Amino acid sequence: MRKKKWADPYIAEHTEFAVQIPNEYKGRWKQLLQTDSLHVEIGMGKGDYLHHMAVANPDTGWIGIEKDHSAAAVALRKLVESTDYDGRNERIIVGDAEQITDWFGAGEIDVIHLNYSDPWPKTYTHKRRLSSKRFLERYRLLLSADGCIRMKTDNKGLFEDSVLYFLENGFTFTEFSVDYRRNPHPEDAITEYENRFMELGQPIYQLCAKRQEAVHETAE
Amino acid sequence: MRKKKWADPYIAEHTEFAVQIPNEYKGRWKQLLQTDSLHVEIGMGKGDYLHHMAVANPDTGWIGIEKDHSAAAVALRKLVESTDYDGRNERIIVGDAEQITDWFGAGEIDVIHLNYSDPWPKTYTHKRRLSSKRFLERYRLLLSADGCIRMKTDNKGLFEDSVLYFLENGFTFTEFSVDYRRNPHPEDAITEYENRFMELGQPIYQLCAKRQEAVHETAE
Repeated sequence: MRKKKWADPYIAEHTEFAVQIPNEYKGRWKQLLQTDSLHVEIGMGKGDYLHHMAVANPDTGWIGIEKDHSAAAVALRKLVESTDYDGRNERIIVGDAEQITDWFGAGEIDVIHLNYSDPWPKTYTHKRRLSSKRFLERYRLLLSADGCIRMKTDNKGLFEDSVLYFLENGFTFTEFSVDYRRNPHPEDAITEYENRFMELGQPIYQLCAKRQEAVHETAE
Repeated sequence: MRKKKWADPYIAEHTEFAVQIPNEYKGRWKQLLQTDSLHVEIGMGKGDYLHHMAVANPDTGWIGIEKDHSAAAVALRKLVESTDYDGRNERIIVGDAEQITDWFGAGEIDVIHLNYSDPWPKTYTHKRRLSSKRFLERYRLLLSADGCIRMKTDNKGLFEDSVLYFLENGFTFTEFSVDYRRNPHPEDAITEYENRFMELGQPIYQLCAKRQEAVHETAE
């Protein structure tokens, strides 16, 4: 994405939606948003998915994380300029998800969304993937007892490797699809980005991962 | 497949390759085949894969199971009529895999192959799937400590559900692919049947499942 000069001042100005010091809300995001459950999208890009979902689900909290300031500013503008929505259950964090454990407390997040994350195809860059071991260890800590990670991607290599990452790091799957959009999922917003793949007939891979203990406890 | 009248007499005649009473070899298949490892393909159909693999891997034992007598007879004929191969490491069992624990001993099988198994798409028939819970419980018993189940299919629904069956029944994955043939796998025979999907550009889904304990023990 081309760098937008207006991004940084705009982010600094809109403190009502762009959380400037996320550490300050660690452990009390639900209190801030006045909701019982908290969804966090890591790598929200221009925030289409986040915004759709926040509007459609006013009783749940939605935090979007994006390290690209220009993309984050576009997402923020969408929220600021919404005329029919007060945005009370939606916030944006402009920063690197590497710091996620500074921002959220243990067990605080109910659902982590990874939508079309960067596939980092070269082997020496795999460790940057948002579904890699380093990140899964953090998510495990931040997820609530029954929490889950929802992942969607069009990238075969990322999906295949991620399946093994999840299983190697104590997660299991409660949903799994190799062509998610062949069945209707009206509850899950379709972004323009996703729509492009669908129009090309490319499958969307999807899964929902839970901590293995969580599933076993529920089953017993 | 159309019923072949010659199938049953042919199977009864060729006792050198078609094992008439498999229970007799329970626990001593490796001894019979003079090999250190045993591969079993359940639902081998006309036996193309089995035969290719047995010829290409003379030091491993290959048993094909098929309940359709006509298909099994075609597979058997391929083996009987091989002129450049003595078939010493290949056998055929004509029967229903429901009985598999009568035929094989605990820990006797190293690799179970499920290739393009019947997807049984209707929900009330799912229990007949060769990757369903009932079967996985049997495979678990029959697999050696480091043994695995190799599955390939073109069927989305069967694959998606099977992923969950495996995980719910104490297996994990050591290989996983949503488009197996986009990378070369010269060690794994491509049958005519499979070739048809590849020519149509349809992806082949593939996985290798191990008992979870086996993977954890190896990792430690």
